[in-house]
Amino acid sequence: MSTTGQQVTTTLGADGKLTVAVGNREWADPTGTEVLVKIEAAPINPSDLALLFGMADLAGAEYSPGKLVADMPAPAVKAMAGRKGQTLDVGAEGAGTVIAAGDDPYAQSLIGKRVACRSGAMYATHTLTDSRACIPLPDHITAEQGAGAFVNPLTALGFVETMRAEGFTGIVHTAAASNLGQMLVRLGATEGIPLVNIVRSDEQVDILKAIGAEHVVDSSKEDFVPKLVAAIEATGAMLGFDAIGGGTMASTIMGAMEQVGSKGAEYSRYGSNVQKKVYIYGALDLGPIVLNRGALGFAWDVSGWLLIPFLAKQGVEGQMRLAGKVIQGLTTTFASHYKAKIGLEEMLTKDVAMAYNAKATGEKYLVAP
Amino acid sequence: MSTTGQQVTTTLGADGKLTVAVGNREWADPTGTEVLVKIEAAPINPSDLALLFGMADLAGAEYSPGKLVADMPAPAVKAMAGRKGQTLDVGAEGAGTVIAAGDDPYAQSLIGKRVACRSGAMYATHTLTDSRACIPLPDHITAEQGAGAFVNPLTALGFVETMRAEGFTGIVHTAAASNLGQMLVRLGATEGIPLVNIVRSDEQVDILKAIGAEHVVDSSKEDFVPKLVAAIEATGAMLGFDAIGGGTMASTIMGAMEQVGSKGAEYSRYGSNVQKKVYIYGALDLGPIVLNRGALGFAWDVSGWLLIPFLAKQGVEGQMRLAGKVIQGLTTTFASHYKAKIGLEEMLTKDVAMAYNAKATGEKYLVAP
Repeated sequence: MSTTGQQVTTTLGADGKLTVAVGNREWADPTGTEVLVKIEAAPINPSDLALLFGMADLAGAEYSPGKLVADMPAPAVKAMAGRKGQTLDVGAEGAGTVIAAGDDPYAQSLIGKRVACRSGAMYATHTLTDSRACIPLPDHITAEQGAGAFVNPLTALGFVETMRAEGFTGIVHTAAASNLGQMLVRLGATEGIPLVNIVRSDEQVDILKAIGAEHVVDSSKEDFVPKLVAAIEATGAMLGFDAIGGGTMASTIMGAMEQVGSKGAEYSRYGSNVQKKVYIYGALDLGPIVLNRGALGFAWDVSGWLLIPFLAKQGVEGQMRLAGKVIQGLTTTFASHYKAKIGLEEMLTKDVAMAYNAKATGEKYLVAP
Repeated sequence: MSTTGQQVTTTLGADGKLTVAVGNREWADPTGTEVLVKIEAAPINPSDLALLFGMADLAGAEYSPGKLVADMPAPAVKAMAGRKGQTLDVGAEGAGTVIAAGDDPYAQSLIGKRVACRSGAMYATHTLTDSRACIPLPDHITAEQGAGAFVNPLTALGFVETMRAEGFTGIVHTAAASNLGQMLVRLGATEGIPLVNIVRSDEQVDILKAIGAEHVVDSSKEDFVPKLVAAIEATGAMLGFDAIGGGTMASTIMGAMEQVGSKGAEYSRYGSNVQKKVYIYGALDLGPIVLNRGALGFAWDVSGWLLIPFLAKQGVEGQMRLAGKVIQGLTTTFASHYKAKIGLEEMLTKDVAMAYNAKATGEKYLVAP
């Protein structure tokens, strides 16, 4: 016996063309600790989009029912040479109901339960995943509320845990009006963590002020740097998490930290001894990262940050503790708001695909197969 | 009673002009743990030059006996605003004879002894420093041999200690034919540490091959990147120390590490899990650091590295252990070779100043007041 349904996959062809399509698929019966989940809702996160579309030209793509074929810029094809010819699953997280399970007692105990889970293959009617990658949802939590229980909530918690582990006492966050950024503002308020939120429009300032953010700085304004310096001084935040990556944002943040760190200190050609660090966790700008080191002194650090290795370091117990925090806060701290629910075929129509691929603030989409 | 002599100082005027001059100076008698050292030899290190001249225009400067006055580019003046109007001592290390000491028994025990010491004011006939910043030299070590006992040897040892502390097992080093780079090659050989040496000319390849370096890669050649990848694969070196800073070298090194790290692995849009790190410890290129992150995956880190904070972290015991290693190796692993000895007034003549400020490979200068 097996289960049939549909799934979205993404394939970079040998010719450099990207094909994203809904296709029929069959899932084998779960064995051992596996469960088969009937998916009800799966969010589209920026990290999913990097795999689903990458830098493909969606405006110029050919669309047919349940399928799009798009050109990919040559440098992107080169950078993704490793996936050429492979048909890849996509969709990191979602929620649904367990309809079958392997022999394992924990897996069996989930049958009939609504769960949040991660599998890397969530844009589908079903997914086969390990029961330990699933969290049972309380009865009052809907699939829509539970669908985004992993990526953003654990990333926000990961920022806070990383801050504490490395001895910092405040965080500077960019693209701070994002779904994740809003969670971080609410989490910062409950955990007493000073935050400097960097956004790039008046509307985004308003979004964050409305949910209680204290320090919001607009990078599109002329007084951005002095305001950033003032906010860093007020919060003591010497650790940044940057969603942008390309360009000079990480450098600007550390330069502002150094201005605060060296204030009133005796001149040293090496700059202050205050340790400044920015983790780059996103790629809103895929261009090169540019560091104007003359403004940084020597006590600086820029590094990549990624959720999965962070979770791996926490061990099973640490992950359970974090998952518990998420479940408790799913309708408050970690609530997500979606602009629209879309079906699998609808995902691959031009207007819809271009809308969610724009990653506009406050316009997060939910796939409901 | 006090001691009189001469000292070189560097002053960035309110007008943005840099004045470097030899002047008369008086030293108070040492008290407590202090010693007064009659200086016999002090090397000119790149880090000394950053303070002595910075980016000043030495070619267009005005020279008079014992003095030069040079224009400084506006961005450099801005970056060094903190030192404006201050007359600064310069010269990090040197060797000489202790001629007076405070009451402290250890300080007293050094009277008449030849010592290596650091004080930050070594381009002078005398220096007043703490006895704990001095190491007595064995009888068979000359002042010239002991003059460079701190900066380069401790930096080379610092690279190795940092590598071990962070769990790496090999080092990629740039500007590797430098005095420091040659020490690192010899230290790597005695300590069994795989090294990838990056240089930029055939002559520099020859210098390192002649002292036994195994992996030497020339960045001026077309096949630089494939050769770098091959050397990293052969050594497993996933930690870099970069003297250059500006430009794309750190990025190129981590990109090559990532090529090795992801070899044969299943495609992941996040890149490999292999942690790659480059410490930037020098500033041969003062321009922006440019990271082409598309080639780096997510497990990367770029950070500043500086000797003084490294030493501070080692504590007194760790510093003693490292100093002992240096003294043992002063005529072998940690030997320096100087192109010429120059006097204090000679330091500030046009030809000589431009020669040592060029920081040419194999052309290190020693000040002999």
